[in-house]
Order: sequence, then structure tokens, then C-alpha cells
Amino acid sequence: MEIIPNILAERYASEAMQNIWSTRGRVILEREFWVEVMRAQRHVGIAIPEDVIADYERVKDQVDLDSIRRREAVTRHDVKARIEEFCALAGHQHIHKGMTSRDLTENVEQRQVFNALKLIRTKTVAALIAFRKRAEQYKKLPLTARTHNVAAQMTTFGKRLAMFGEELYRGYKRVNTLIEDYPLRGLKGAVGTQLDQLTLCNNETGKVQALEKQIFNGPQLNGVGQVYPRSLDFEVISALVQIASGPSSFAKTLRLMAGHELASEGFAKGQVGSSAMPHKMNSRNCERLNGFHTLLRGYSGMAADLTGDQWNEGDVSCSVVRRVVLPDSFFTLDGLLETLLNILGNMEVYEEAVAQEKMHYLPFLITTTLMMEAVKSGIGREVAHAVIKEHALATVRALRTGETEQNDLLDRLAADERLKFTRDELGAILSQAENECGAAEAQVDHFIETIDALKQRFPEAEAYQPMSLL
Amino acid sequence: MEIIPNILAERYASEAMQNIWSTRGRVILEREFWVEVMRAQRHVGIAIPEDVIADYERVKDQVDLDSIRRREAVTRHDVKARIEEFCALAGHQHIHKGMTSRDLTENVEQRQVFNALKLIRTKTVAALIAFRKRAEQYKKLPLTARTHNVAAQMTTFGKRLAMFGEELYRGYKRVNTLIEDYPLRGLKGAVGTQLDQLTLCNNETGKVQALEKQIFNGPQLNGVGQVYPRSLDFEVISALVQIASGPSSFAKTLRLMAGHELASEGFAKGQVGSSAMPHKMNSRNCERLNGFHTLLRGYSGMAADLTGDQWNEGDVSCSVVRRVVLPDSFFTLDGLLETLLNILGNMEVYEEAVAQEKMHYLPFLITTTLMMEAVKSGIGREVAHAVIKEHALATVRALRTGETEQNDLLDRLAADERLKFTRDELGAILSQAENECGAAEAQVDHFIETIDALKQRFPEAEAYQPMSLL
Amino acid sequence: MEIIPNILAERYASEAMQNIWSTRGRVILEREFWVEVMRAQRHVGIAIPEDVIADYERVKDQVDLDSIRRREAVTRHDVKARIEEFCALAGHQHIHKGMTSRDLTENVEQRQVFNALKLIRTKTVAALIAFRKRAEQYKKLPLTARTHNVAAQMTTFGKRLAMFGEELYRGYKRVNTLIEDYPLRGLKGAVGTQLDQLTLCNNETGKVQALEKQIFNGPQLNGVGQVYPRSLDFEVISALVQIASGPSSFAKTLRLMAGHELASEGFAKGQVGSSAMPHKMNSRNCERLNGFHTLLRGYSGMAADLTGDQWNEGDVSCSVVRRVVLPDSFFTLDGLLETLLNILGNMEVYEEAVAQEKMHYLPFLITTTLMMEAVKSGIGREVAHAVIKEHALATVRALRTGETEQNDLLDRLAADERLKFTRDELGAILSQAENECGAAEAQVDHFIETIDALKQRFPEAEAYQPMSLL
Amino acid sequence: MEIIPNILAERYASEAMQNIWSTRGRVILEREFWVEVMRAQRHVGIAIPEDVIADYERVKDQVDLDSIRRREAVTRHDVKARIEEFCALAGHQHIHKGMTSRDLTENVEQRQVFNALKLIRTKTVAALIAFRKRAEQYKKLPLTARTHNVAAQMTTFGKRLAMFGEELYRGYKRVNTLIEDYPLRGLKGAVGTQLDQLTLCNNETGKVQALEKQIFNGPQLNGVGQVYPRSLDFEVISALVQIASGPSSFAKTLRLMAGHELASEGFAKGQVGSSAMPHKMNSRNCERLNGFHTLLRGYSGMAADLTGDQWNEGDVSCSVVRRVVLPDSFFTLDGLLETLLNILGNMEVYEEAVAQEKMHYLPFLITTTLMMEAVKSGIGREVAHAVIKEHALATVRALRTGETEQNDLLDRLAADERLKFTRDELGAILSQAENECGAAEAQVDHFIETIDALKQRFPEAEAYQPMSLL
Repeated sequence: MEIIPNILAERYASEAMQNIWSTRGRVILEREFWVEVMRAQRHVGIAIPEDVIADYERVKDQVDLDSIRRREAVTRHDVKARIEEFCALAGHQHIHKGMTSRDLTENVEQRQVFNALKLIRTKTVAALIAFRKRAEQYKKLPLTARTHNVAAQMTTFGKRLAMFGEELYRGYKRVNTLIEDYPLRGLKGAVGTQLDQLTLCNNETGKVQALEKQIFNGPQLNGVGQVYPRSLDFEVISALVQIASGPSSFAKTLRLMAGHELASEGFAKGQVGSSAMPHKMNSRNCERLNGFHTLLRGYSGMAADLTGDQWNEGDVSCSVVRRVVLPDSFFTLDGLLETLLNILGNMEVYEEAVAQEKMHYLPFLITTTLMMEAVKSGIGREVAHAVIKEHALATVRALRTGETEQNDLLDRLAADERLKFTRDELGAILSQAENECGAAEAQVDHFIETIDALKQRFPEAEAYQPMSLL
Repeated sequence: MEIIPNILAERYASEAMQNIWSTRGRVILEREFWVEVMRAQRHVGIAIPEDVIADYERVKDQVDLDSIRRREAVTRHDVKARIEEFCALAGHQHIHKGMTSRDLTENVEQRQVFNALKLIRTKTVAALIAFRKRAEQYKKLPLTARTHNVAAQMTTFGKRLAMFGEELYRGYKRVNTLIEDYPLRGLKGAVGTQLDQLTLCNNETGKVQALEKQIFNGPQLNGVGQVYPRSLDFEVISALVQIASGPSSFAKTLRLMAGHELASEGFAKGQVGSSAMPHKMNSRNCERLNGFHTLLRGYSGMAADLTGDQWNEGDVSCSVVRRVVLPDSFFTLDGLLETLLNILGNMEVYEEAVAQEKMHYLPFLITTTLMMEAVKSGIGREVAHAVIKEHALATVRALRTGETEQNDLLDRLAADERLKFTRDELGAILSQAENECGAAEAQVDHFIETIDALKQRFPEAEAYQPMSLL
Repeated sequence: MEIIPNILAERYASEAMQNIWSTRGRVILEREFWVEVMRAQRHVGIAIPEDVIADYERVKDQVDLDSIRRREAVTRHDVKARIEEFCALAGHQHIHKGMTSRDLTENVEQRQVFNALKLIRTKTVAALIAFRKRAEQYKKLPLTARTHNVAAQMTTFGKRLAMFGEELYRGYKRVNTLIEDYPLRGLKGAVGTQLDQLTLCNNETGKVQALEKQIFNGPQLNGVGQVYPRSLDFEVISALVQIASGPSSFAKTLRLMAGHELASEGFAKGQVGSSAMPHKMNSRNCERLNGFHTLLRGYSGMAADLTGDQWNEGDVSCSVVRRVVLPDSFFTLDGLLETLLNILGNMEVYEEAVAQEKMHYLPFLITTTLMMEAVKSGIGREVAHAVIKEHALATVRALRTGETEQNDLLDRLAADERLKFTRDELGAILSQAENECGAAEAQVDHFIETIDALKQRFPEAEAYQPMSLL
Repeated sequence: MEIIPNILAERYASEAMQNIWSTRGRVILEREFWVEVMRAQRHVGIAIPEDVIADYERVKDQVDLDSIRRREAVTRHDVKARIEEFCALAGHQHIHKGMTSRDLTENVEQRQVFNALKLIRTKTVAALIAFRKRAEQYKKLPLTARTHNVAAQMTTFGKRLAMFGEELYRGYKRVNTLIEDYPLRGLKGAVGTQLDQLTLCNNETGKVQALEKQIFNGPQLNGVGQVYPRSLDFEVISALVQIASGPSSFAKTLRLMAGHELASEGFAKGQVGSSAMPHKMNSRNCERLNGFHTLLRGYSGMAADLTGDQWNEGDVSCSVVRRVVLPDSFFTLDGLLETLLNILGNMEVYEEAVAQEKMHYLPFLITTTLMMEAVKSGIGREVAHAVIKEHALATVRALRTGETEQNDLLDRLAADERLKFTRDELGAILSQAENECGAAEAQVDHFIETIDALKQRFPEAEAYQPMSLL
């Protein structure tokens, strides 16, 4: 029968992320874990010869999934089948001592999560570097900022990019904290009391502590049951949502800008536009990125639903959910970051169109400045306000009814005798205003500095080349 | 590279459900749809020879996914690749006339959904029949009903089963209504205006209507854009959640009953218990069922997030989400229903333990009856109430402190001179009460009748044999 | 201490919806229910004098919440307090016979839900009528349809409105089905077995059935526990999400159109624009409408989380959730529909701007037509395609770089000697194409007919006047 | 018209939490913010006299909501109304200089969130202290640990409590990190470029930086738009879910234990049980706690839905959602923690019942030990396993069929000649095993140390007295 592939892994995720969650990758992680446990057990005095450990280590990458499957058909127990396979390969029977299945599976799943988080961190930093590059490129390009989707004030396009980049940076910080503080369950046994490891160590508590310390460096959980608390999974997945948020807002904004023909996500090399409508450059990648974000929110909800539902020392009602949520949410975010890196690499900004839009709205954006100037020139404040408002509204109306195609507010004001401005004077005010973007440039500089500091910590991120998209 | 399988499809869903969502299954659905369109186009006068259609039809099941993949690598367009493959097989170029990609994909996805809904309906009815059977079996078995997880009044176990069955029946009704009223998008073209089909039909509106009528019987959407409204997907997925709800409550209750050793989900043939702890019969299937329900709620949330987010005539920000949500939610519910059928088939009820529990709580459950009888015997109401309450609380305390192991409330009451009951009289009152379960039996009968009526409409459901679980 | 109001009720919901969920409204519903039960009990022979019932009925609207609160402080039981208050007012002690608290509260909450659903249905029909009116008004207004937020083909604005209206119509159908098929829990007692009503009726099953039949006309649940299945609440709330979906997509599209200055949500009478920026007409109501839709999806998720979680015959872990979700989701949808009615009433369409946009994109939208005409004129298909594509891409580039401000594709084509078109011929092709909107108009007519049929069933909907917004 | 109260605030949240989110509380926060801005503006040289600031400060607590409402009816602008009111009280017009509405509202809402987080942290620590106290109390009480809701191995009740406590401790850490790293939006103006503050400061960037530095100590956002990124709200609400998770699992487990009569949530002083069924001690508070957790997950989903949806520099489609989600999620968690503190304060453990359960299951729990002892005594391993399994299964069967009421496995084994144990020897093995709980006690000690260290940092938490529940 045809195998139905995991669509997120197959179409969108990188090979590195697939490896973490593949059956083969998991088998190797398990074997590495067993070897580490043996090494630590030997260290605290349990009789496991060094060459036995070496024998296991030598065969750990020999993964024959069919053979394991055949063993499982006999034992009807998946962990047992994998124990037998590894032992048969090594020619010994020394792994899994004093361990329950959960001592294996919980720890291996935590390692998958941990490795996946680190991969995500690298790509997040790569995306921050890409944002930084584009923000610098467009640092001074004046852009009509919009609130409520209508023109509001001036900003620069670089500032807009830095804004989304800074939201992503917050996501980076959250995942980084999580990596540094991710606590491991350890060898806690069937109900969390370490009974079996203690028995193996002749009830010497110190030995069990030494054992765990050697295997699990970094933070460790102390009082667990059969399982580690599922709120830890939610902590992970909700951090993934946070990473996705800045990019998703950016993608949505780029879709809006494409609608105004101010920018586009560009084409990857070799990609072709719609053949029927050659003018049409669809924001497919941005749309897909928003789709990934929707999926992540859903997986986060599933992970939330596993929290607060532990009965006694635990059960497996979470099992099928975690089998889906853990890999699929990482595949999703991995795909999202790959997509983001492609967009940031290929995006195009149509500077002339940006400038035209600015000039179109500018007379409206400077009405408060005009009023101040009018007052300076000796006109009463109330009169100035009334006159300017009257003409602004008339201009809006004329534009909407097609009476005029150009924003001719300044002409109207120049022609009104109640004000004392010539057209040239008004033009001069406008010229001065058209590049006034407040602290936008300084804010971009601040963002650049932040990312430059980060770049040095993650050289692999700077070197990262995104995969090409389907 | 190792293919990462869709875990829900591979481990839990039935072959029939996998076929609906497999690439091969989809290719065949597409080809059938193209053939139907040609047939209808010919019917309204478009020049497509009958034997051409026959040539296409003959090769429609020859699916060579590798060949299609090779074509896609050249065309860089998935629909185009599948058009070419089908045409090459048939030796003609007559399919996809006046159609856009969405005319194909939207309709084919709707057919997948529709077929999957029908499969779910069959299994839902099969599960209702299984509930009915068990409800009948235990119709008269008195059981301590619990509210707030503590003993409240008597019911019967059959009634408890009928209660969950009736909730499932409501789910059946919802999905049945949906199947009967599921509206199809039709051939509406790139933005919903049918421009291309109209052009093909020389702008004869009547022809286009006749065309659609022949292809899509049943309800049809009229005014769509590029896509059908995504709230229709939410309508589907939320119906799936509803079907899962009764079974999930049942599974949770069976887990509770297993904790009290009143019942268990039983073992499938060949299944063995925990080897280390032979007494341990874990409710793994019930727990898994609850896990499926959690997944479904999550997918329902994702589907909800696609609603209300259509920009203009539509885009593809929903695409990756639907690629995941549509198949995965059906795989999940399919797995849930298979699991449910197994549980209902294998469950065990320990009638003696049920009876013991009943006898343990019964003296508490009849305190109101005792009071009425005391009043009848001439004791003042307030006195009776005070005396009975005093002894009831003392009994509770004695049980909890281990002072007594048996519920000896009746002995205490018999010994109290303020009441006038002998121990025998109290025993008689108890005996009469112990099987008073109100309308429980009649309610089970009503449920049986409802399902019997249904059974006749779906003979395939009665014959359905669930798959064996992993 | 300051009372913190329910913000959804206070700011957004109508008075009618507030009444349904207010404490006062609930007290009256309870009393009406008690009276109905007495009337039915009397009908089946239980000794309750007619004038006693009349006495209760007479005082049922005398709601003194403070008095009830004082009673509750003494009894420490809310239902008991309300029983006492009603009895004291009537001067009798005949209500609540054979009833448990849940017999009261479940049924009263179902009545609140039912009444709220009917109110929602009325407003949904009112909104459909408003869509219909606008769709008719703009039935023939050609509009550049957009997919992926970029220009795709022609449609009409009326068709776009009908598209969103038809999605809402699907929501109407769902809520209408629900109203017609909403099953009531009935008087089922503490664990669902009707023990107490049966006792009251001397174990005569027929009497209890007659009793329920008189009180609850319409569908009834048979086998419940302490509570009705919570998936029924999810069925309700998910229907509310569905109603919200079409309006939310419409609001989002109107926000997009406002960004292009093609339309706006308009101003209510007395409303003023931004004083600092008189040109700015923010789509505040559309944005709010989208916010309501987000809330509803969240409440739907909460309701989903209550499904599949019934332990045995039920408990109250759902209680606080339902206290929030039931009223708040209805307040939210009520506010959404009021907002929608305001938007549909006040929206403005700038027909000249719509026409300008159309003319701007039209040359791109007709490239396929041009190619067909070129082929007719004797040019080779491949040549025609290459030439047109070359000029289309050049035009796009020129527009984006500001080289030209007008779409001059036709001029470029006329100047190319490889084609044989004069500028006039090209202009003629364009002129013919500019109003070709396929079946758009017919689709609007179909929508109008659908709503006209509906209008007659709900005269109160046609008369409905929305509240004015904050 | 009757005001519909916010049910979460009114029934469940503490006065302190209500104050943070009340209109009055918010008005005061706004005024304090305005005063701080004036003070900082004066500091950087803007002409605001010291006594003017003092005049504002003096009247800041004089909140007359009716007066504000009357002003709003005139201005039709809520912020403007509150500016006028404050100025009228102070007799000056110096507030809100260079500020937009969002400069006020975003910052004030962030202060509400920040204050609410700190209140939550205090109560979280108080709950940890309560867990610690109970864990110490029951540190050595052996308890049958359950996995899959069936008996598995021994633990202690203190360990079980420490397990849930440690999950809560993780929640504490998350909220503590958040408090220490919560970044503020600052005075960034209408689109985030600080244009108006810069204008006010004569374009001196340094002044604006100094201004912000004085008002906002701690981390600050740099590049925002109109609003701070909404993923920050999600970061907050998802942290609240995490805090709720350990308590929710604890409450669910206590509900399970109550079903087995091992423990109960106890009664608050003055509370009475069910009058009809005096033995019934419902876990109403635990159930309610689980309900709060469900609500929080829903609010977290709503907050997630606001992320990744920022259009350009922002709009207000999030407004109505945040008006609901921010206060309601804090009210919910506040109510949850108050409920938890009550449960931990009042819970009862029935030690005899716990001991009985242990003795009932113990023979099953020691089968592996028995096998080891049998092997030591010279019996073959396979024989021992077969014999023990045979009798264990027979005992299970006998218990379920009611053939025996006591777990008589040891009697059966003593009677089997294939083993060589006397009943006394078996009894001795059992006696030794019955208190073997592995590292449970040491794990409790570790938890105690962790909380003791925390206690010193938050003396207000140790002193905290929970409110009494409704």
C-alpha cells in the first residue's frame, strides 16, 4: 500500500529537521542515550565492561528498520524490539538496566525537542540577519506609514522591516532562554521514585545522583511521575508561535504592499509567473507563511490541551497527541523560517511606486504643519483650521469622484485668499516634510547593532543558506 | 532519504480512509471528474467525441506517480503535469477545457471530503449499533451512578451506555444532515464568474447551467470567488468533533471505572498485559481515544482560523493548512471510531464488583427513603432527619478512619432507640431500594428502538468489522 | 466597590440580548418554567390547585434581586433562595416538586440559548436583507476582482457582496436547522433516571411522559445524566462562528478596499473623522467586526474543550466555563451583527475610483483575448504569445519604476510591427472587454431571489433597525 | 437597565485584581502616567512648572466616572474626555504633550498587565508554600502510585504533592522571567517614529531618549508601530496557562482520589455538605479549578490569534479582543489561585483508607520482588515466573468475580508446593516492601529546600491569606 507521507516534512521542512524526527534519527538517539547510561552506570560501579560499551557504540549507526519491525511483530512491544536489535548487533545484553520504557522514551523525546529548538534558533538568527540586511538597505527610503490600512504619517521602509525584525528578536530571546533552561526528566522510573535505579545501586542515593548528573548536564526535573509535566511541551510550542508572529505580520504586510504594487516577494531563480497573466506576481510564499502560522497556533492549542490533565502519576492519553504535535509543529516552523529566508532574499521594492504613493498622500500628512505655519504667518488658529479642513475634505471628495486624479490640496490652498501662502511657499513646506521620518533611521541603527552583537554568537547562522522552495 | 510517514494515517486510520486521501486516490478522483466534465460538455454541444471520452475512462486507473513527478519537474506546475500524463495515457487532448486549476482542485477536494464523511457515517452507525448491543446486555445491571465522581443514586450500566450512545447519535444526525446538504462549488472559474465556461459555451448561460447540473447533483453554491467559503470546511470539522464527543466521554468514564475495577476495556485477541505486573490492565485504547479527541479539537480550531479571512476573491493562505487539516482530522476520527469499536467489542464488566460497590454505598443512597419511612412510623420529621444525619456522618467517618470496613449505617440506626426500626425492617427497605433505577430501563429501550430504525438504513454498518489495533 | 461590567454586554450587545442573559431575565425564565411544570403536574393529577398556579403567575415579574441575595446569604444555596423568594411572593409552597437543581438550571439555560438563537436568526436575516440590497445596488458595477490580493479578472461589486452574503446564508441555514432541532433535557432528575418525578407520579411512567410532553414541545433528549451533553453547547457555539464567517471576510475585504480608496465603511450620522487628519476614514467598525470573529473562535474552542469530558453522570467542571462562554459568545455575535448592519447601512463606494482601477488593470486582464484576436488575424500563436508577454512585462516594469504612470500596454502593442493591430482596434477590443463580468449579474439575481423568499418568513427581520454604535 | 457584571471579576477574582482592571483603577494609572511624563518632560527642559505637576498629582485620586462619561458624550472621544476631566480638576492644561492616544493607552495597559503579573507571582509563591507545607506533612505517607489510573508502584503522598508543586514552580519561573524582562513600548507616537516627541524636543534625539529613560526603567521596545507587538500579550497569557497547569493536574488527581475516598478537598468553615446526602462531599472547588484552566487555554488561543496579524503599522482589530482577554484571563487565574489556596488549606487525607488501598494492591506490586526471592531460594526463574503469574491472574479474577474480597495472593502462593515459601516468609517480604518508596522522601526534601529559598524573596507571599470562596 502507498505510504501517505507527512506533508509538512515532505514538502516544507529541511532535511536537518526531518532527520531529527525520522525513525532512523530517533533510533540513533536512543542508542546514544543507552550508551551514555551504560557509561554512567559503569562510572558509579555497576559491572559493565568498557569494551562492551565500545561494541555498542561501534554499531549504533547500523539502523535496519525492517529488522526492528520483524522483531516487534514477535515481541508485540516496540521498546523491547529495539533493545533486542541493538543487543544482537553489539553481541551483548547490557543496555536498559534498571530502566523502564519511559526512562528511555521521555528522555529521547526531550533530546529531539532540544535538538530541534537549537536548529530553530540558528534559523531564527539567520532570519534576523536577513531582516537586518534589508532594514539597512531601506533605512532611508521614506514610506507612507499606514494605520487602519490608510495613510497616517511618514516612516521609512527600513524602519518597518526593523519593526517586524524586532518582534522576531523577542521570539529569539524566548527560545534562547528556553534552550538554556530546558529541564530534563532523568532516570526516574515507572512512577518517578527512581526505585529501580536505586535497587540497581543498592539503595545508595548518592550513586543515583552521580549517575544522573553524568548523563544529564544542565537543569533537571526533580519530582516527576511516569512522565515529565506536559506543560513543558506547551512552553516549547508556545515559544514556536512567538517566533512565527513577527514573520507572519511581515508577510501579511508584504501581501498588502503587493496589492498596492509597492513591493513583492520576488521570484526565486527559475520560477515563472502566471503564464496567462504575465503581470501577476502572486505573494504565494507570504500566503504560505501565514498558513504556517495558523497551523502553529493550532498545534499550540493542542499542546495546551495536554496541560493540567495528568491523572495521578500519568498515563498515555497524551501519547498520540504528542506523536503529532511535537514533530509537526517543528516541521511547520522550520518550513516557515525557510520560506521567510527566501522571501527576505528575493523580495523586491519598487522605489518609484513608493515615492509616488508618498507624494500622493503627503499634502494630507502635513496638514498640522500647514496650520502651524499659517498661525506663524498671522492667521487666526481657528480660521486656519477651518480653511485647511474645508479644502482637505474637498480634495478627498474630488479624488474619490474622479474629479481630479492628482492630490491638488496645495493648489486649492494657494488659491484661497483667506490664507496667505503662495504655491511655491506651500511646495517648500511640503519638500521639507517629505523626508521627515522622526527617529526611524536611528531605530534601524539600533536594530542593526542588536543583530550585529548576535551574529557573532552564531556564526553558523550567518553562513546559513535556505533551501529552495517547492 | 527516509520518507516520514503521516503517523495518523499509518498507525491508526483504516485502509479505506487512507485511499481517499492518498495521492493515487486523488489522481483517480481528478480523472473521474475530468471525464464527467467532458461528458457534460459533450452533452451541451461541445465537440468532444464519445470514443475520446471512452479512451480517457479506460486508462483512468493507470496511476504512475513517478511519471507524474518527472513531468512536474519539467513544467513546474502540478496540475499541468497531471493533465499531460492523463492525456498521454489516453492519446488525446480534450480534458480541462475552460477550467482553471481551482475548478479542478476545489471540486476534487470536496469529493474527498464528501466520501470521507460517508465513510465516517458508516462507522458512526456501526458504533451506535455496538453501543446498542452493550446497552441491551447491561440494561438491568444496577450501577452506582456518580456525580462529582462520588456515589449519588442508582442507575443501570445499560443506561450509562445508552447515555453516551445517545450523544453519539446526535453526532450521527449532524453528519447525516451535512452529507445531505453539502453544497458544491461547481465550475466557477478564476474569480467565480464562470467567464471561461461561458466563453466556451458562446455565452449561453443556459448551457453552463445545464453543464453544472449534470456534473453536480445535489446542492450547489452560487456566488463563490476563486474558492468555496472556508467556513464550509469548519462546518465539516466541527461535525467531526461532535461525533467524537460521546465516545470520548465514554472512554473517560471507562478509565474511571477501570480505576475502581468495575470494568475494563478488555484485551484484543493475542494482546498480553504488562509482563512485570500481570494484574495491570491498562486502558490504553480509551486513553488513545481521548487523545484523538484532543487532536480533533485542535484541527477544528485550525479550520475555524481559516474562516472569516478571505481577502477579496480569495488566495492561498489557507492552502497549507487545508493540506494538513482535512486529511488529518479524518484520519483522526477514523482512528477514533476504529478504537471505539474495538473497545465496545472487547470491554469487560465485573458484575460482582459492580454489585459490591452498590451494596457499599446503598445505605447512604437511601437516607431520604429512610426518613420518609421514619415519619410514616410516627417519628417527627426533624428528629428523624437529625438522627439519620448524625449516624450517616459517623459512618462516613468510621469508614475513612478505618474504624470499620463495612458500611454499617443500618446497624447504627437499628441500635438507636430514637428511631423505631429493627435491623430486619431496615434490611427490607434496603432490599427494595437496591434495584430502583427509575426510568433507566425504559430509556435503554428507547435507545434500542432508535438504533434499530437506523440499522435498516445502513446495512453496511451492521456488517462492519473494525480493524485490529496496533 | 465598583462593579466591573461585562464589557461585551455593556458596549456592544443589544438590549434584547442583554435581557436574555441578565439575572433578572433569568429569574423570570425560571419562574415561568416552574409555573409550566406545576401546570403540567396538575394536568397529570398531582394536587396543585389552579388558583395557586395563578398566584405564582401573577407575581412572576416582581424581581427583587436584593431580597434574593439576602436569602442566599442565609441558605448558602442559590436555587433554594430563589425558591423561597418566589414562594414568599406567591404565598404558597408548590413549586419545584420532584425537581433537583439541575432540572431547573439545565432547562432554563437551554431556554436562554434557544431564545438567543432566535434573536440571532432574526438579525442574520436582517443582515442578509441588507446584503441583498447592496448587491442589487452594485449588481452591474464592474470591479477588478483580485486573487492573491492582485488584479485577476473582472467581476461586479454586487457579485462580490453576494458572495459574502451567500456565505452568511449558509450560516443562517445552520442556525435555522439548529433551532428546529434543538433537543431539550427535560425533567430527568439527579442522575438522569427521572427517579424523583416517577416517585411523585407513583411510578407511573406514562404520567411522567405526559408531564414532559406538555412542558417540552419539540425534540427531547432521552438518556442524559445529571446534565445534557456538552457537545450540544459546542454545536451551538460553532454555529455562531459560522454565522460570523461571511461577515468577517466581507469586513476584511472592505478594509482592503478602503486601503485602495475604492470604498469605505462610511460614517454614522454625527460621527466625525480624525480631527488631525481630516482625510482619514478609518475602518474601525470593520476592524472591530474582525475582532468579534476572533473572540467567537476562542469561545468555540472553550466550548469544544468541554466536550468529551463527562465523568460518569456528570459534574460541574464545566460550570464556570459555561457561565462565561454561553452569554459572552452570544453578546459577541450580537455585537458583530449590529456592527455589520451599521456597515452595510453606511458604506460608501467610490465608483470613479473603482472605474479608474479597472481601466488601469484592464490591458493586463485582456491579454488572453488579445492573443486569440492576433491568431485570428493570421499571426502565429507562438509569436503572438511571445510579443504580448514581452510588452506586458515591460509595461509592468515601467509602471513600477515610474517610467510611466499610465498602463500603456496597448500603445506598445500598437507600435510593434510584428502584430497587425492599430491602436483603435486595440481600444475596441478593450472597450468590449471592460464590462464582461461573466455570470456575475445572474449570480446576484439568484442571491436576490433566495433572500426574497426568506424575507417573507421573517417580517420582523426586514423591519429591524440596528442600534447605533459606540 | 441592569448592569451585567463581569462574572469572573464578581464571583471569583480578588479585590486586588479587580482594582487593577476597574475603570477607576485605570483612570488613576493614566493620571500617574501623565504625571510621570510631565515630570520627565520638565526634566529635559520643556516648560512645565513644578507646582503645576504638584496640582495634578494632588487630584489624581479624585475619580468621578459620571463626570467623565458626561464629557465623553460631548467630545465623542474617550481619551479627550479624560484629559479634560483631569485638567479641570488640576486647573491646568499641561498633560498629554506630544502624545497620541496610543502613547497613553498602550503604556497604561502594559502597566495593568505588569501589576497583574506581579500579583499573580505573589499568589503563585503563596501556593508553592502551601504545596510545600502539605508535601512535608505527608512526606512519608505511603501511597499507591497509579499509572493509567491503575495501581503501579509505591510512592508517598508528599511526593505526589511535590510533583504537582514542582510543575507549578516551573510556572513561577516563567512568570518571574517575564516580569524581569517585560519590555515597554514607550512614547513612540502615531506610527512608531516618535515624530511628535521629537518635534516637542526640537528634534534633539538625546532629549527624547532621556525622556523615555526616566519614565520607563527596565527593558524597552525600540522599533514598534502604532502598537507594541501583540505576540507580547500571547507571551503573557501563555505564561498564565503554564501557571495553571500544575494546579489543574493536582485538582484532577484530587477528584480521582475523592472518588476512591482517599482524600477530599475538605470544607471551608461554615460550608455544609449536601443536605439530602450527608455522605457526599463533592469536589466542587477542584472541578471549578479545572474549569478555570479550560477558560485560560481559550483566552490563550484568542491571544495567539492576535499574533502575526499586524497590518502595516497596526490597527484596532485587536482592540475588542484585548478588552476581553487581558482582564478576563487575569481574573481567571486569580480565581484559580484563590481556589487552589483554599483547597490546599482545607484538604483532608484519609490515612486509613490510603493504607487499606496500599495493602489491597501490595501483593500485586511486589511480584517482581517475590520472583527474585524465589530464585534466591533455588527455584528456577521460569518456574517461579509461571507460578507467580498463574496465581496473580487467579487472584485478580477472584476479586473481580467476588469469589474473594481480600487480595489473597500470598495465601495462594504459600499453598503452592512448587514454591518453597511459608505464609510468614511471604508476609515478611511484604512488610519490608510496604514502605519502599524509592527516592520519594528525598525528592520532597529537595522541593522543600527550593521553596524555602523562594519564601525569603517573597515575604508577602508567606503572609498571604486567601479570600473565602463563594
